[in-house]
Amino acid sequence: MDLLNGFIRIGLLNMKFLKTISVREFRNILESIPRLKFEDEVINLGESFNRILSQDITSDINVPHFRKSRMDGFAIIAKDTFGAEEDNLIKLELIETIQAGDIPQKKLNKGQCSYVATGAAIPENSNGVVMVEFTDKKESEVFISKAVTPGTYIIEIGHDVKKGDIIVKENTIIDLATIGILASCGIKEVPVYKKPRVSLISTGNELICPDINKLEIGKIYDINSVVLKKAIENTGAKVDFLGIVKDDYNDLKNAIEKALNESDILILSGGTSKGEGDLGPKVLEDLTGIEIYVHGVKIKPGKPIIFVKLKKKLIFILPGYPTSALSCFYVFIDNFLRKMSGFPLRERYSKTLEIGERIYSTIGRHEFKAVKIQEDDGEKKIFPIKTGSEAISTMFYANGYIEIDELESIIEKGDKRRVYFF
Amino acid sequence: MDLLNGFIRIGLLNMKFLKTISVREFRNILESIPRLKFEDEVINLGESFNRILSQDITSDINVPHFRKSRMDGFAIIAKDTFGAEEDNLIKLELIETIQAGDIPQKKLNKGQCSYVATGAAIPENSNGVVMVEFTDKKESEVFISKAVTPGTYIIEIGHDVKKGDIIVKENTIIDLATIGILASCGIKEVPVYKKPRVSLISTGNELICPDINKLEIGKIYDINSVVLKKAIENTGAKVDFLGIVKDDYNDLKNAIEKALNESDILILSGGTSKGEGDLGPKVLEDLTGIEIYVHGVKIKPGKPIIFVKLKKKLIFILPGYPTSALSCFYVFIDNFLRKMSGFPLRERYSKTLEIGERIYSTIGRHEFKAVKIQEDDGEKKIFPIKTGSEAISTMFYANGYIEIDELESIIEKGDKRRVYFF
Repeated sequence: MDLLNGFIRIGLLNMKFLKTISVREFRNILESIPRLKFEDEVINLGESFNRILSQDITSDINVPHFRKSRMDGFAIIAKDTFGAEEDNLIKLELIETIQAGDIPQKKLNKGQCSYVATGAAIPENSNGVVMVEFTDKKESEVFISKAVTPGTYIIEIGHDVKKGDIIVKENTIIDLATIGILASCGIKEVPVYKKPRVSLISTGNELICPDINKLEIGKIYDINSVVLKKAIENTGAKVDFLGIVKDDYNDLKNAIEKALNESDILILSGGTSKGEGDLGPKVLEDLTGIEIYVHGVKIKPGKPIIFVKLKKKLIFILPGYPTSALSCFYVFIDNFLRKMSGFPLRERYSKTLEIGERIYSTIGRHEFKAVKIQEDDGEKKIFPIKTGSEAISTMFYANGYIEIDELESIIEKGDKRRVYFF
Repeated sequence: MDLLNGFIRIGLLNMKFLKTISVREFRNILESIPRLKFEDEVINLGESFNRILSQDITSDINVPHFRKSRMDGFAIIAKDTFGAEEDNLIKLELIETIQAGDIPQKKLNKGQCSYVATGAAIPENSNGVVMVEFTDKKESEVFISKAVTPGTYIIEIGHDVKKGDIIVKENTIIDLATIGILASCGIKEVPVYKKPRVSLISTGNELICPDINKLEIGKIYDINSVVLKKAIENTGAKVDFLGIVKDDYNDLKNAIEKALNESDILILSGGTSKGEGDLGPKVLEDLTGIEIYVHGVKIKPGKPIIFVKLKKKLIFILPGYPTSALSCFYVFIDNFLRKMSGFPLRERYSKTLEIGERIYSTIGRHEFKAVKIQEDDGEKKIFPIKTGSEAISTMFYANGYIEIDELESIIEKGDKRRVYFF
């Protein structure tokens, strides 16, 4: 696919202005953007789960750093046990009991043994362990009923990790096993990439905050500041909500400039449609240095999604309706931010089910239609949600969505469709 | 299955002592334990993601709480537009422009209209909106080319949420849509169940903490305090690491008593096998009020897992080896704690693949064998990990595990097995 089709090159700026592109084109643009290069920082190992290592990590120690027993038994000199059998017991002198954590005090000489618990250090000169099951202890005498070869049940130094080896490579996502292996080497802190810094702004004169403002006619509580904030946090990014900005050119311009100074990615909601009060596109088009500018993706709900790449910064403007904003977020931004964070991508759980009631769609727009799953004739089927993107309850009652192609206007009862679950 | 088979009833205490039970029996015991009843607490809505509501929530307001427009257009009195067509324009007087967030100042009279943006409040007396597309504005005159019926493009009061209605029910897991609908009602704080309080203790004289102790012969860094802590946190529980406890009866008894006072669930690791230094079982058997006591589940790695139900408290002792501890945690405790937290259960991702190399197992124990997936002859196949549960690297290099039945000793190359991925 040639992204240059449809690009409008404007004089020397060579800007890529894309107006109203398809879902696939927008996805391709987002996929073509590599992970931003973030600085690194050093954090506690215990807080490093799901963060990304920014350097190879080597171990300063061998693990284990001493020879230890794999079993409860008696540490011996293997040669001393040769010939031992059930009817030919060999007697050894017990000189020490070594529990896990003890430092062995005595070196073995010919004919001697020490008790060793699982994980305990092996005494000097020992080269094997006889399991308790093949011994009989009588005070300071131990009778051995099985010969062992050198090395039996001994865990050698560096068996698990060798000193100086790279244990975990740069760019690894730190999972529990990674934390485990680093902890085993005594590593307390790790260098990781900083989280992407995302600024979040809600725009609209109608929006108010329940802490601060009285609910008057015309005003509504801002939902996106709470919902999108958490959705962004769930991708591994660090979010800073910069507040509600009024529909004023200068206010919005100042807020956007502040956000771009303080963060890598800016997500605004509201101010994208074509009403008189929508300033987002106007402010963005005045920014200098834009590399990619997308205004409008042919989807429903949320057609007016805007995307700008400006040097190393990225700006998204999502629709103001929370249901549209959240569905656009899930469809485009969720995994994009996860990629930026280095987080595991979200795999969408989906299933093909029968349509339980005719569903209508608008020709010319790729629709992400919120649906609920209900039992009908003893079978789980797909039903449309009757409210639209203006209602937050649409998302609340939906179990998932189906994708409806640009060219479809009706999906008949009885058709089969794939539902993507939230 | 009758759990009472194998129970040893001891005098008046009527304790259920179960020694060495099967994986299925242990899973059944855990599944039979209902969610503990936790107290509730009130927290900020923005911090309530994945928490469980402890009460039904009702709305104090209608959403929307005023009549608003679904479109950019002109608010009219429907009757005034009757008869309007493309070749029969009807002229109305424009008396006001109402943007989203504005309070309408003027009431409509016959023959008048007001501009309304999407989401803006509708002026008094208006009962319909004509989309901008069917109008032509000339200064203070608006020409309408389409008749609308009463109610067109008006969102009525309470369309989304009705005042006094229960919006979200007790015991709901708070997801993003729930946060959204609560935020739309101006709700800032929500009552939720407290998280289960889990105390974590590592036991063993061999364990040291890299912050505090010097690495000597016989000592190893404690891994479980970091790995299990994070694993428990991921289930939605609140974890308190109470430190490393030495293999001393009184030390361990005191630590267990302290933990039981401060938490709902206690997870210890280490001290379960049969070596002389293992005190966990001894201390637990001296506790009074035990309802269920399991000592030993026939699995590998980790046979000596111990479980105690003591009035409303639960105690697990996991093996000390981190690889065994973590695999026991995943197999038994992870979803059990999620149930206690009310968290969504983890669905294990699994796939059936061919065995690439013969795998050995011990008869008489259900084995959870760590495996890696590698390409072989251009196909993904299952290979055993050569190190055992004594090595943390076993878990690090493993992609998942296969379950091997008690009665199997060999799985041949070419057999098909289901791999459960970590």
